[in-house]
Amino acid sequence: MQIRTHVGISLDGFLATPDGMPTWDSLPAFDPGTHGYDTFMERCDAVVMGRTSFDQGFEDWSKAWPWPDMQVLVLTSRPLAANVPEGVHASPGGPGGAVQQLRDAGVTRDVQVLGGARAIQSFLDAGLLDGLGIVVLPLVLGSGIPLFPIEPTAFSREAWDARQAATTETPKPPLLRLEEHDAYADGSMHLVYAPA
Amino acid sequence: MQIRTHVGISLDGFLATPDGMPTWDSLPAFDPGTHGYDTFMERCDAVVMGRTSFDQGFEDWSKAWPWPDMQVLVLTSRPLAANVPEGVHASPGGPGGAVQQLRDAGVTRDVQVLGGARAIQSFLDAGLLDGLGIVVLPLVLGSGIPLFPIEPTAFSREAWDARQAATTETPKPPLLRLEEHDAYADGSMHLVYAPA
Repeated sequence: MQIRTHVGISLDGFLATPDGMPTWDSLPAFDPGTHGYDTFMERCDAVVMGRTSFDQGFEDWSKAWPWPDMQVLVLTSRPLAANVPEGVHASPGGPGGAVQQLRDAGVTRDVQVLGGARAIQSFLDAGLLDGLGIVVLPLVLGSGIPLFPIEPTAFSREAWDARQAATTETPKPPLLRLEEHDAYADGSMHLVYAPA
Repeated sequence: MQIRTHVGISLDGFLATPDGMPTWDSLPAFDPGTHGYDTFMERCDAVVMGRTSFDQGFEDWSKAWPWPDMQVLVLTSRPLAANVPEGVHASPGGPGGAVQQLRDAGVTRDVQVLGGARAIQSFLDAGLLDGLGIVVLPLVLGSGIPLFPIEPTAFSREAWDARQAATTETPKPPLLRLEEHDAYADGSMHLVYAPA
């Protein structure tokens, strides 16, 4: 069982537009048959998502449930509605609890962490993501919901001078391992990283 | 004459750390011989940079001037110091003025827009960048100076509901053209985009 993502982000790092639409939808044409989505999902037996994403998508999904015969875990401490499809369960124990729940349910093939950004981040932070799969779409959004929790800063002469005067090296972040890379016809770029 | 960048950014989109150090320096090992830098510079006859970058780097560069025999333009409305090396000129007319200055100086080969983020952005905004070359380094910084001027937002149920209720489609951003892509040994990923 490997825990993986396959998310579309803009070149400037956004997973979704400011109104919460997945960045995939900013492409002129996107369907599950393009951009490696179907290939990715064929390897998966389960989907994990955050509560916000579930509540956001449920109305739309329930018209034609996208994950029949799959385990779907929703990271949440509040109970789900009674009318959720079979296979959908609340998962109150965070990423670690979700992994245990999936093991207990007999899942052995891959698990998609669908989103949103916070759910993906919680798996990254817990060291439980085996493959961070990203499709960098060749477009710039300018604003939206970033995949990573980022703090943009501006250049500061004071910070620069302090760095130059410092006698210790800044600690270097660990390198992730680029596991896979390929380009799609529209210039989207599929990148899969494994933890260092 | 083509105007191009070759900048290292983190996976979360930062060109520099919060103290202004180029993201390249966050790699365990970086020198001009790696990550396509020398190949890129062999095609260039000129370098353009913002005033902040120039003032920031000048002390260090002046120990061993990196661009002998090259035109170096500094985007600025204020005069440069008298002791700048030969070939270094102030360029007060923005990206358009800089291009004219380079043409007048007889530059025919490529021009590197070195940075910072604002200088690159001004060329992008003016439609004067022929190649947006990015090297995505396999590391996450969390904070720093982003390449793109971005406004991160959080998910908003109100914005989502408004989008669902809207009767018009959101306009889709233009697609850039992925001109080139290749991976370096350390998992850095070289991507070159041309305007759509």
